[in-house]
Amino acid sequence: MAKQNTETQLMEKLVSLCKRRGFIFQSSEIYGGLNGAWDYGPLGVELLRNIKDEWWKSMTYRDNVEGLDAAILMHPRVWEASGHVENFTDPMVDCKQCKSRYRLDILFEEISLKKQKDVLREIDPQKFQGQQKDEFIIEEFKKLAETTPSSVISALSCPNCGNKGTFTDARKFNLMFKTFVGPVEDSGAVVYLRPETAQGIFVNFLNVQSASRQKLPFGIAQIGKAFRNEINTKNFLFRTREFEQMEMQFFVKPGTDDKYFEYWREQRMQWFIDLGMKKEKLQWHQHPPDKLAHYAKDAYDIEYLFPFGWGEIEGIHNRTNFDLSRHEEFSGKTMKYFDEETKEKFTPFIIETSAGASRSLMAFLVNAYNEEEAPSAEGQMETRVVLKFNPKLAPVKAAIFPLVNRDGMPEISKKIEADLRPHLRVFYDDSGAVGRRYRRQDEIGTPFCVTVDSETLQNQTVTVRDRDSMVQERVAIDKLLHYLKQKLI
Amino acid sequence: MAKQNTETQLMEKLVSLCKRRGFIFQSSEIYGGLNGAWDYGPLGVELLRNIKDEWWKSMTYRDNVEGLDAAILMHPRVWEASGHVENFTDPMVDCKQCKSRYRLDILFEEISLKKQKDVLREIDPQKFQGQQKDEFIIEEFKKLAETTPSSVISALSCPNCGNKGTFTDARKFNLMFKTFVGPVEDSGAVVYLRPETAQGIFVNFLNVQSASRQKLPFGIAQIGKAFRNEINTKNFLFRTREFEQMEMQFFVKPGTDDKYFEYWREQRMQWFIDLGMKKEKLQWHQHPPDKLAHYAKDAYDIEYLFPFGWGEIEGIHNRTNFDLSRHEEFSGKTMKYFDEETKEKFTPFIIETSAGASRSLMAFLVNAYNEEEAPSAEGQMETRVVLKFNPKLAPVKAAIFPLVNRDGMPEISKKIEADLRPHLRVFYDDSGAVGRRYRRQDEIGTPFCVTVDSETLQNQTVTVRDRDSMVQERVAIDKLLHYLKQKLI
Repeated sequence: MAKQNTETQLMEKLVSLCKRRGFIFQSSEIYGGLNGAWDYGPLGVELLRNIKDEWWKSMTYRDNVEGLDAAILMHPRVWEASGHVENFTDPMVDCKQCKSRYRLDILFEEISLKKQKDVLREIDPQKFQGQQKDEFIIEEFKKLAETTPSSVISALSCPNCGNKGTFTDARKFNLMFKTFVGPVEDSGAVVYLRPETAQGIFVNFLNVQSASRQKLPFGIAQIGKAFRNEINTKNFLFRTREFEQMEMQFFVKPGTDDKYFEYWREQRMQWFIDLGMKKEKLQWHQHPPDKLAHYAKDAYDIEYLFPFGWGEIEGIHNRTNFDLSRHEEFSGKTMKYFDEETKEKFTPFIIETSAGASRSLMAFLVNAYNEEEAPSAEGQMETRVVLKFNPKLAPVKAAIFPLVNRDGMPEISKKIEADLRPHLRVFYDDSGAVGRRYRRQDEIGTPFCVTVDSETLQNQTVTVRDRDSMVQERVAIDKLLHYLKQKLI
Repeated sequence: MAKQNTETQLMEKLVSLCKRRGFIFQSSEIYGGLNGAWDYGPLGVELLRNIKDEWWKSMTYRDNVEGLDAAILMHPRVWEASGHVENFTDPMVDCKQCKSRYRLDILFEEISLKKQKDVLREIDPQKFQGQQKDEFIIEEFKKLAETTPSSVISALSCPNCGNKGTFTDARKFNLMFKTFVGPVEDSGAVVYLRPETAQGIFVNFLNVQSASRQKLPFGIAQIGKAFRNEINTKNFLFRTREFEQMEMQFFVKPGTDDKYFEYWREQRMQWFIDLGMKKEKLQWHQHPPDKLAHYAKDAYDIEYLFPFGWGEIEGIHNRTNFDLSRHEEFSGKTMKYFDEETKEKFTPFIIETSAGASRSLMAFLVNAYNEEEAPSAEGQMETRVVLKFNPKLAPVKAAIFPLVNRDGMPEISKKIEADLRPHLRVFYDDSGAVGRRYRRQDEIGTPFCVTVDSETLQNQTVTVRDRDSMVQERVAIDKLLHYLKQKLI
């Protein structure tokens, strides 16, 4: 009985709920915000911690995956070896009229499909003839974004001021943030904020291998912040300048890479499903051979169906031996693995699973959001907003409600709260009608509401109400922690 | 029976152990390292996670403290309001001869006490007369570092090239890393990497308060990275350019601030003691009134006795209403709290507890390090290195050793490992003599070693050996998880 929202309405409601209830605030909001940066409020930080903890446990509580936490600042040569200094760029144009600045591919997105048809007709009437399909037009524009001849750019109209032919030629803009170590701001002092966490793993491959005494195949997992100087940020947490990644690089013997690529594809998709993602909202997107990154042999994205469309939440990549070979070349240090059994020395292939923590959080939020018709405490039907998080991810695990403020109920309720608190994140609420208290907890996804009523005083039991079924069960107070823990595993 | 190490030896041994066993690696080591940045290896990341988790639980599993995770990049006006743009500077000098660069106070430290006496005598023979005490000399130099008259600087010799009078005048150097948002590198695009996490809390004060419906007094806690462009980094993890903080800001009604200042001082010192810090290695350092930061009414540091001397691991500060008042002034938005009971509107005072996660980790490492004479498996006395972490902090909780590779022992051992792994971080080791396996686990602080021997096959029990007492106990396999969990709480 879910109510229908338009996609825009849904995003607006979600962003508003996130702010109001303390999931996500705009960064530096009192100063008008900082574009592309968001702060996690009291509930957001718990949701994010829970997602990261589940990932960490699922990835590193294995005998063949080790953890790592590398620094954000790295030696600048790392980014020459990785190819980022040369290749990590977006084509960018400015409108000479109104000074708006666009990433070329996003400019194409912002121009309506109808107008794009006109542009294409103008550029290449021959090719366009007869082709009316939207997919064809979009594909053509994607190709154009990569080559960006001046003729395309001069045919475009600025979505902001409406003028045509006012765009500069496209130029490459490197997406790495740079800063300077030490007091002198010259090229010798430049370091970058890492644009991905992966390189911290690659350069530490042999350090980790020798300290942990791991044999191939084994992996290194890491959670950490990365930064990209995006020209256009958009879609809430989806494209931001500061974000968090959960990456695992799995080192394998060449020739076994296809097998482990399939293994990790299956594992990673299953992780999202096990945590409650709706299967029909998840899909694989394989990078076509002509679109593969320079380092990749094969690449699949896990995409989630956001209100604004399908968007990548994780990439699984066969990176071959590109990264280790490049670091060997640029550092002059060996990055080869010595196989003690076969006495072979070789450069491992790498299977990468690279998830966005911030994007996953947004997907889990969207996935959990429901509006339902449900009876109120007074029996009337009303709309309840409920975030149906997997209980493991829910920021608050249980709420405690004293039904009325008399007969020692607050005392008993407070004692229950105090007993649960060292084990679970709980919330105490004694204000307003109990129906309103339920709705407040539904809206933040609290899986269990514990109500202390007059029966509690007689037989030392409470009711526990399930968020999704709204069914209530009576549970003895001394069994409550055990009861909740069982349901939260 | 601890063996005596000199302080330098101890630090060298610790740094070497950290690298060899995978606690800490130099950042970007294959490229010669990046000064002031370190990577946490497989054991280091677990130790760091455990410290941060203990802090998070102890600080936010309360009904009056909320969590937050604000972005590293903030609006640049934040740092004008906070005073960092103007005041967060170090006096710096360059040697014109050899181009060495020094922070002035560190330069004084590097010049030997004997030479400092000579310098002081030269500058101010009157004042120095009769005074021979080292403390007096150090105090005088601290004062000089703040005023830095040219006469002092010209009297100094460069510790690197030995020349005298070759230093430039001191100049202010701002310690904030800056970068540029968007493609144009001009002053309008400057943002800073936050030099502290605290400001992210201050600017979100009313957002958090209204979302969480908290009433004064309440706190906001946050763990996150901060960055300072230190001129001289030193002492391993102690003074680095990238580091992690664990900060809590407690908002109180003016007039109650002294009470909560004392409360949090007591809480925070107790936290370190509860996690096994030796009391005699901890001390309070009160900032003298003439040395208090511009925002502070009172300030105490918790100091730990590192091999290089006492060093701050946490600061507890009464920041008054300075921060909120400044943000109100600079943003034009109210930062006042409305007290619903008294109908008063006022700017809260803030009690800050600001711990270094990286520094705490280093203190826990130093604190845990022991060398002991102990009998080997063969009964001879030998030196064992043992990290006596509180079990809650230990990176690996239990190791599993099959005593010999026959009779189904590997199978049973592997099953024990597989049963424990979802609950605890465990390590399986079947290589080498069991005595060596114990030593390897002692060296990384694993509190329990589980040995599978011939008796296991007969009666389904294993031995569990305690790291510190080295006493072994027989435990039934089906009770093992419960046994370990009890000891790890």
